[in-house]
Amino acid sequence: MNRNTLIVGAILSAFTTAGMVSLAGADSHGDAERSPVRAKSEDWQEEFPDFYEAWRRTGESDEIIDMLKKNPQMVILWAGYGFAKDYNKARGHMFGVLSNANSLRTGAPTGPTDGPMPTACWTCKSPDVQRVITEVGENEFFTGKWARLGDQVVNAIGCADCHDSETYELVVTRDYLQRALDASPKDYGDIDDSEIRTLACAPCHVEYYFKPTEYTDKAGAEQKALVVTLPWDQGFLAEEAEAYYDGMDFVDWTHGISRAPMIKAQHPDYELYTTGLHYSRGVSCSDCHMPETEDGVPDHAVSNPITHIKQSCLGCHDQTEEELKQTLAIKYERKEQLNQIAMNTLATAHLEAGRAWEAGATEAEMAEVLQLLRSGQWFWDYAIASHGGYIHAPEETLRVLGIAIDKGSRARIELAGILAAHGVMNYEVPDFSTKEKAQQLAGVDLEKEVKAKIEFRNTLFKEWTASAIENGYLDPRQREGLSDNTSYKK
Amino acid sequence: MNRNTLIVGAILSAFTTAGMVSLAGADSHGDAERSPVRAKSEDWQEEFPDFYEAWRRTGESDEIIDMLKKNPQMVILWAGYGFAKDYNKARGHMFGVLSNANSLRTGAPTGPTDGPMPTACWTCKSPDVQRVITEVGENEFFTGKWARLGDQVVNAIGCADCHDSETYELVVTRDYLQRALDASPKDYGDIDDSEIRTLACAPCHVEYYFKPTEYTDKAGAEQKALVVTLPWDQGFLAEEAEAYYDGMDFVDWTHGISRAPMIKAQHPDYELYTTGLHYSRGVSCSDCHMPETEDGVPDHAVSNPITHIKQSCLGCHDQTEEELKQTLAIKYERKEQLNQIAMNTLATAHLEAGRAWEAGATEAEMAEVLQLLRSGQWFWDYAIASHGGYIHAPEETLRVLGIAIDKGSRARIELAGILAAHGVMNYEVPDFSTKEKAQQLAGVDLEKEVKAKIEFRNTLFKEWTASAIENGYLDPRQREGLSDNTSYKK
Repeated sequence: MNRNTLIVGAILSAFTTAGMVSLAGADSHGDAERSPVRAKSEDWQEEFPDFYEAWRRTGESDEIIDMLKKNPQMVILWAGYGFAKDYNKARGHMFGVLSNANSLRTGAPTGPTDGPMPTACWTCKSPDVQRVITEVGENEFFTGKWARLGDQVVNAIGCADCHDSETYELVVTRDYLQRALDASPKDYGDIDDSEIRTLACAPCHVEYYFKPTEYTDKAGAEQKALVVTLPWDQGFLAEEAEAYYDGMDFVDWTHGISRAPMIKAQHPDYELYTTGLHYSRGVSCSDCHMPETEDGVPDHAVSNPITHIKQSCLGCHDQTEEELKQTLAIKYERKEQLNQIAMNTLATAHLEAGRAWEAGATEAEMAEVLQLLRSGQWFWDYAIASHGGYIHAPEETLRVLGIAIDKGSRARIELAGILAAHGVMNYEVPDFSTKEKAQQLAGVDLEKEVKAKIEFRNTLFKEWTASAIENGYLDPRQREGLSDNTSYKK
Repeated sequence: MNRNTLIVGAILSAFTTAGMVSLAGADSHGDAERSPVRAKSEDWQEEFPDFYEAWRRTGESDEIIDMLKKNPQMVILWAGYGFAKDYNKARGHMFGVLSNANSLRTGAPTGPTDGPMPTACWTCKSPDVQRVITEVGENEFFTGKWARLGDQVVNAIGCADCHDSETYELVVTRDYLQRALDASPKDYGDIDDSEIRTLACAPCHVEYYFKPTEYTDKAGAEQKALVVTLPWDQGFLAEEAEAYYDGMDFVDWTHGISRAPMIKAQHPDYELYTTGLHYSRGVSCSDCHMPETEDGVPDHAVSNPITHIKQSCLGCHDQTEEELKQTLAIKYERKEQLNQIAMNTLATAHLEAGRAWEAGATEAEMAEVLQLLRSGQWFWDYAIASHGGYIHAPEETLRVLGIAIDKGSRARIELAGILAAHGVMNYEVPDFSTKEKAQQLAGVDLEKEVKAKIEFRNTLFKEWTASAIENGYLDPRQREGLSDNTSYKK
């Protein structure tokens, strides 16, 4: 029997009629109070076959759009950081683990203590994350290298990332999100139906950083975890998150060309969304990304609403699909125009800063430039890293990009003076108009990265998969038929 | 008997039920086909006493908000142009003629062939404009000095600026607007009810310039008129109007500090409004600025909707007045943030350009800077000169301001190099943080301007008024109780 409609229909109906729901699970900060996490979506399949099948369709969104090819400026902007190696447009939830493992950003570890990334890099990729946290503890999860958990974090983003494994309720599945909600100046009060259908997405679709956290493990040893933490204490605006980071002198990486102390924005979808009109009118993420099916339940093939405007938009918008597409195209163009200007300005400034160092500029001379680069790029990234900002919050996106342009430009104005003071006049930055040229400037040895990654995929990654299947963490059916394409191999 | 409701109710009803109306009067490009214009609104009072009384209430919006005090950067931006002398926030329609005569921008003529401005400067200020055009011809109206028509253009913006004097229909009362509609790439087709209730405002609330036009007058003499013309041939975007002006090497004035060949944006409210959501949903100017009264007719006390949100907004917006005010405040702040950055950037660039000339920069070195200043300031002005852009078209306003920031910044980057090449390092522009300081930098002798203007007001202007009353052009009741305050006298 198909219980989908009955059970989830009942849950939704409870949400809708009651108006308010408790954050089941999320009120309990301790690991012990969590329900055991059923991380394998295949374990939910028998009870929810329609939802399972819909969820699998997120694997159809498998196209690799190489953002570094599309916008080679990004390579310069992220020089010295993993994103300069490989950055593709987001794909469906089914690709959570695979995209993470395939990305050149996670490197090519050869064993559990090897590689560039910490375990925190798994956080948004799989319901196994909360399963492991529930089993071993949050700090314990966030300790060590990414490769340490490669044979345990194996299931694609799935059922247990949004739903309680016992009650099936929509819940905030990550403690770090609950801590951020508590710390935020926004008064959530009782979380209503609309808010939980947005907050269910927020564990992943937010800005975060890895907070160094010292603790004593069960064996009594001093340990240091890197715990995913949201910079929400002052609010959701780009300025407020920046003030949070500045207040702790936080640095994600030192820029490879300009030496600026950079912050990488992740994907503050939720934060930006709260500044927009849809949110203020009570529209939740799922209203558009999981529009109701003919059965009256949310479509679990979570996807881009532009691919189903009729279902997602026209229930509220009294327009034709064609009219709405035209409106969206104009919004996109507005954003993209300022985006291109911001990227070109900031990338040029990084390269000019690099030239200034070569010419003998001093730390004192460069201090303001580096601060402007850090801040300007933060604003740009905050507007752009957020998926769909031009729809979620078009005005705020344009405002934030305007600030990015201003700060990047002011860095360039300062740099013109510094370069002149060191005898460099009319400096023209080198050509960064293709991914290849930009990666050469950024010092990325793509061939070496790809070679190592392919070796990793053929060895350690295969071992992880085999081990996970053997240990019962992964149902081999999950990966069947799933595209394994990447930006670097056909 | 009060005919207001009956007659205008009938007209409105005809609009609404038919859906389409012809542009009465506007289809006829020749002067001869126009109805005689009843320019004195007092002549409409007997038939429409309620509308007359409502219209008089536009005289209550009499506060002088000195924009040059609020934003001293504007003085630098307009150096060498009349706006650097005097620029106040727009007031009610009743002040059309008085504000124009009181403005330091129109100078202090001593007779009909004296003063800085042409007759075209009356165009938006009074229904006498179309009366004179109908009587003497359009080119003849647009010939000679502003002061030539001082005793004829005397009535405040009133009934005949929007309505046909015989049929009372809403019409496009100016031929230059009809020519622009014909030239525009937008297909207006049949003008519907909503569009005419917006186009009725467009004769004045648009971008325009004074086009030199040669003609032979009735006496057979060669004459040159300056005819108000709208740059709509390519479209309504800032880029499209700029391309129109660039295509004819149009220059409003040469900047007094930077020597850039400037274009002054007027107030492209209509153009910007057409890029916004309200327009796309069929909301007309009068829907918000003249919301329905309890009698079901448009409130003829044309005003700022923020002063009557309940009547103007809450019929469509399902929010409280407080919520809407908060939303508007955020929109204003977003715009104002980018506005301040754009103004500071462009004003600084003008001053740096002035320093570059002093330092011996050549025309060739400065060419790109001057083009960036012309274009950047055009974008800024297009976004800001339009009243209420942050509500009419918030996204487009932010986009256009973003471009202004970019272009002004690129001028500054170029200038840093030029200044350095001429031995000027670390140049700090002089302080322009008050209207007084900025006017000193811009070479405005305010005392002299004010003295001359007061003399003008006490002599020629009084003669114009007396003559107009004597000749029956002005009903003396119109100016009764009307504030005569200005930015320069208490």
